Amino acid sequence: MARNKHPEETVNLILDVASRLFMEKGYEHTSIQDIINHLGGLSKGAIYHHFKSKEDILVAVTDRMMEESNRMLAMTRDRRDINGKEKLKMIFKKSIERSELNDIFMAAPDYKNSPQLFFRIFYDTIEETAPDYILPIIRQGIEDGSIQTDYPEQLAELILLAANVWMNPMLFDNSEEESYRKFMVFRQMMKGLGLDIVDDEILERLQELTSLYQKNK
Amino acid sequence: MARNKHPEETVNLILDVASRLFMEKGYEHTSIQDIINHLGGLSKGAIYHHFKSKEDILVAVTDRMMEESNRMLAMTRDRRDINGKEKLKMIFKKSIERSELNDIFMAAPDYKNSPQLFFRIFYDTIEETAPDYILPIIRQGIEDGSIQTDYPEQLAELILLAANVWMNPMLFDNSEEESYRKFMVFRQMMKGLGLDIVDDEILERLQELTSLYQKNK
Repeated sequence: MARNKHPEETVNLILDVASRLFMEKGYEHTSIQDIINHLGGLSKGAIYHHFKSKEDILVAVTDRMMEESNRMLAMTRDRRDINGKEKLKMIFKKSIERSELNDIFMAAPDYKNSPQLFFRIFYDTIEETAPDYILPIIRQGIEDGSIQTDYPEQLAELILLAANVWMNPMLFDNSEEESYRKFMVFRQMMKGLGLDIVDDEILERLQELTSLYQKNK
Repeated sequence: MARNKHPEETVNLILDVASRLFMEKGYEHTSIQDIINHLGGLSKGAIYHHFKSKEDILVAVTDRMMEESNRMLAMTRDRRDINGKEKLKMIFKKSIERSELNDIFMAAPDYKNSPQLFFRIFYDTIEETAPDYILPIIRQGIEDGSIQTDYPEQLAELILLAANVWMNPMLFDNSEEESYRKFMVFRQMMKGLGLDIVDDEILERLQELTSLYQKNK
């Protein structure tokens, strides 16, 4: 394949292939050469033109995965017609309803054999999603009186750690029963934090995703 | 160095050196050759006699780090003179009081550059500490009436994820102020889960460890 006239297409192609290989074989067991082998003749030089290292590709892969989700988060965050607590409830519901999740859960990436992939998701959650999306919403909630806390930053982190990491059926290889039980404890935790915003629709969708993952892993 | 007549001493020496290098340089940036270079003449063959791979050494390093802590956990778990809730409270206090923690926090390992090391701690917490130590205590608490939950397994996991991972100042490079704020949210979460067992002594020790890490990192 000749050097592409449209570099963004080359980049996307590299990320498509890398993303699939990372999910299938695990990040550690995928080499730059593996990625090249699936790129129909793209040279090593062409890859290094866009990415310094395999780590660099991983960062771009996870960033791209989060872009779609972040657009939705930003839209909800920036609404002016509902209060902070309602936004938080909406975000939980919308995040888990996203149809792209079906593709990811059917691809069934093996995070337990991909420490780097896991690590990226973990820190992106804490260092980007929490401060950029959940924190501003909690602050709005404090202002409009719908959320009570003196520690909005930490509340944002803890909620996301529980919801995005602990309750993620891929990261822990949960059974449907386990997903259900985690959900029940999560809901109790949220109530204790003054956030009774988690309802049964979320539970149903969580069990659906868990089942998709279990069937395809 | 000749092949040791006492293999457990050789193993311990390898683990001492590997542990220090993993902490100082990060797991990814430490090679088997680096470890050998610090072993005063031990051959590659001698290392491979004991460990199949670098990954294998990592597992042994973290296992050894957790042994001391696990002995304490087991002792508290197996007491017969106090109820489940009191045991849980004692375990939190004792875990954070351990003097070995000072050494670890002064060594100030850079977990943010060691996904594998981080990953091991994370999964050991969820897959060993939670089911082997915290779960039996919560079950005792249910039986003796001091703890109320229908989901002991999940409660054990969530508590540990918050306490051992999220509140660990090394894993998140927390400032003292952040440690304080996390503690306050953690205490509220615990109360909401019916576990008002976290007191100010724990906060003081957490801030002491945070300060040790910040000074030495």
